[in-house]
Amino acid sequence: MSEALSIPEAAALLLEQKRILILTHERPDGDAIGSSFGMREFLRESCGCEVDVVLPTPPPTRYLELIGDYKTTLTPEEVAGYNLILLLDCANRERIACGPAVDPVLLPELSGTPMLNVDHHGGNNVNARWNLVVPRAAAASQLAAQIAIATELQIPKRAATLWLLGIVTDTGAFRFSNTLGNTLRVTADLLDNGADLERVVNAAYYSKPLNQQHFETELLETQEKLAFDGRYIYAYIPDELFAKHNFDMRDGEGVIDLLREVAGTKVVALYYRKGDSFKVSLRSKDQRYPVGPLARSLGGGGHEMAAGITLREMDHNQVEALLLEKVAALLGDREQD
Amino acid sequence: MSEALSIPEAAALLLEQKRILILTHERPDGDAIGSSFGMREFLRESCGCEVDVVLPTPPPTRYLELIGDYKTTLTPEEVAGYNLILLLDCANRERIACGPAVDPVLLPELSGTPMLNVDHHGGNNVNARWNLVVPRAAAASQLAAQIAIATELQIPKRAATLWLLGIVTDTGAFRFSNTLGNTLRVTADLLDNGADLERVVNAAYYSKPLNQQHFETELLETQEKLAFDGRYIYAYIPDELFAKHNFDMRDGEGVIDLLREVAGTKVVALYYRKGDSFKVSLRSKDQRYPVGPLARSLGGGGHEMAAGITLREMDHNQVEALLLEKVAALLGDREQD
Repeated sequence: MSEALSIPEAAALLLEQKRILILTHERPDGDAIGSSFGMREFLRESCGCEVDVVLPTPPPTRYLELIGDYKTTLTPEEVAGYNLILLLDCANRERIACGPAVDPVLLPELSGTPMLNVDHHGGNNVNARWNLVVPRAAAASQLAAQIAIATELQIPKRAATLWLLGIVTDTGAFRFSNTLGNTLRVTADLLDNGADLERVVNAAYYSKPLNQQHFETELLETQEKLAFDGRYIYAYIPDELFAKHNFDMRDGEGVIDLLREVAGTKVVALYYRKGDSFKVSLRSKDQRYPVGPLARSLGGGGHEMAAGITLREMDHNQVEALLLEKVAALLGDREQD
Repeated sequence: MSEALSIPEAAALLLEQKRILILTHERPDGDAIGSSFGMREFLRESCGCEVDVVLPTPPPTRYLELIGDYKTTLTPEEVAGYNLILLLDCANRERIACGPAVDPVLLPELSGTPMLNVDHHGGNNVNARWNLVVPRAAAASQLAAQIAIATELQIPKRAATLWLLGIVTDTGAFRFSNTLGNTLRVTADLLDNGADLERVVNAAYYSKPLNQQHFETELLETQEKLAFDGRYIYAYIPDELFAKHNFDMRDGEGVIDLLREVAGTKVVALYYRKGDSFKVSLRSKDQRYPVGPLARSLGGGGHEMAAGITLREMDHNQVEALLLEKVAALLGDREQD
């Protein structure tokens, strides 16, 4: 059986537990890290609960200083020793990061330890014993904070800082459209509880490795192209550029913003080879020209304003030509007269 | 006589007026624009008041689309035709932008029209008939919004969007330490009233002219220097670089962030020649190494984490050497062993 909980119900459930195991999604980002470690701090310090977070693979370096120690391995026997598994920010079972010794798909049923699934992804299909899925929440960290606020217990500063990290990174520092009034009200409560905004901002936005800066500079100098009077800007990243600067796109979430921030552009694209295919990232700055349908027409997916495609059996010149054709149609080539 | 008002008192005073003249500071930035034009929309639409904004010099191009028409000139006779002058975001009389025909210093007394001075600068010394000066407010736009909220009247969407612009630009999109819980609660109310976050973010952050991007790229490629294991990063901007890219530092507020965003750096500096002196901008990323005292020791000023100096009778190599010496002392050269 699977049951939907309200925020106060989730709070009450957590307060009944003695030993809690916290898990999140693979390749943890700021919100996965923030929601998990923030909840660990809160449950340990304010509820006197024993809590472990497991991360089988290391988180981004920039967040290491904020989080402290954590478990890196997990066995089925260890899982059975907890009263509750708290899953945060993970939309489906396949993505649960629990290490090779535990099957993430069967984890909610076979371990004997019931699971509470707290998430903000609309498509969440974890179906745990208890579920709190709120797509209007900007971040899992926002939900974690709302649960803590509902307990009326003290929120430790470190927990407030970690949840702030999750909210800041998942909203692009309050620049994305998932930033709603309630997001800011919860964030206000975290600041009032001593969340360290300077530290979060430094970790999330002022921690660019120098090799990434050099990579980006050379990318703009050598690869940036404009079309349709600058309404479309795009760049191809050759393999050699990655190699030259020892840069990996796993750290490249912000690179496409270098194109997006240019005045007057409506649609931007960034693409690079990965194995025998091309990865294409698309962004729109104007709701009249959504990139979601364009991506879906080529087998890709994503949101209306941010989408991606994987293209096979093409070289980079063909990718360029295909995107130019599709973007021309999107922007309406009659406007070019 | 000069009287301090509370937010509800300022709201009540505004609601009694029929014709209001709104003024702000010279070289208006996002908050000057946002607070002024937001208040115009609110007082016109929700209070039925006649309101004019005067801007003797044009605002930044990126904000033009948000604000609509405005008056560019003002005579003493025109001033006398208003019931109230509402001054927003202006810390002293010398900086009031009212055009050449009106003396800004005498404006509050000689026009016969009383002035309400609403501002968030700690050092505000306007001493108008009525004053609402709240240094803890992140932006004058925040105060304008709080006044509107206090009236309990409807806040038009356009007013909410303009005040959001002021708050976003004065907080660096909620990244600066002036972002407090109350800042976010007021912003939440603006979003609930339909403020257009996408439009504000595009105007403030995704409107970089292409020449500025080229200027920045070449600056990083050719001028960025690291010292003290990268804990200090600095760049000198030669005159030729400004000329080559037709770039003016009046639009260069964000340039120093390109240095600040690098991982591991504690202090950054950017300097360039202006006339027969050098302008130096300094930023700290770590409260243990404040740049305020360094700037003051060289005759400059500013805040602890963001300061500036004007240096005379030096060439750029001497500026470089002087800053290296001062920053070495700040960072503690013993740590270099």
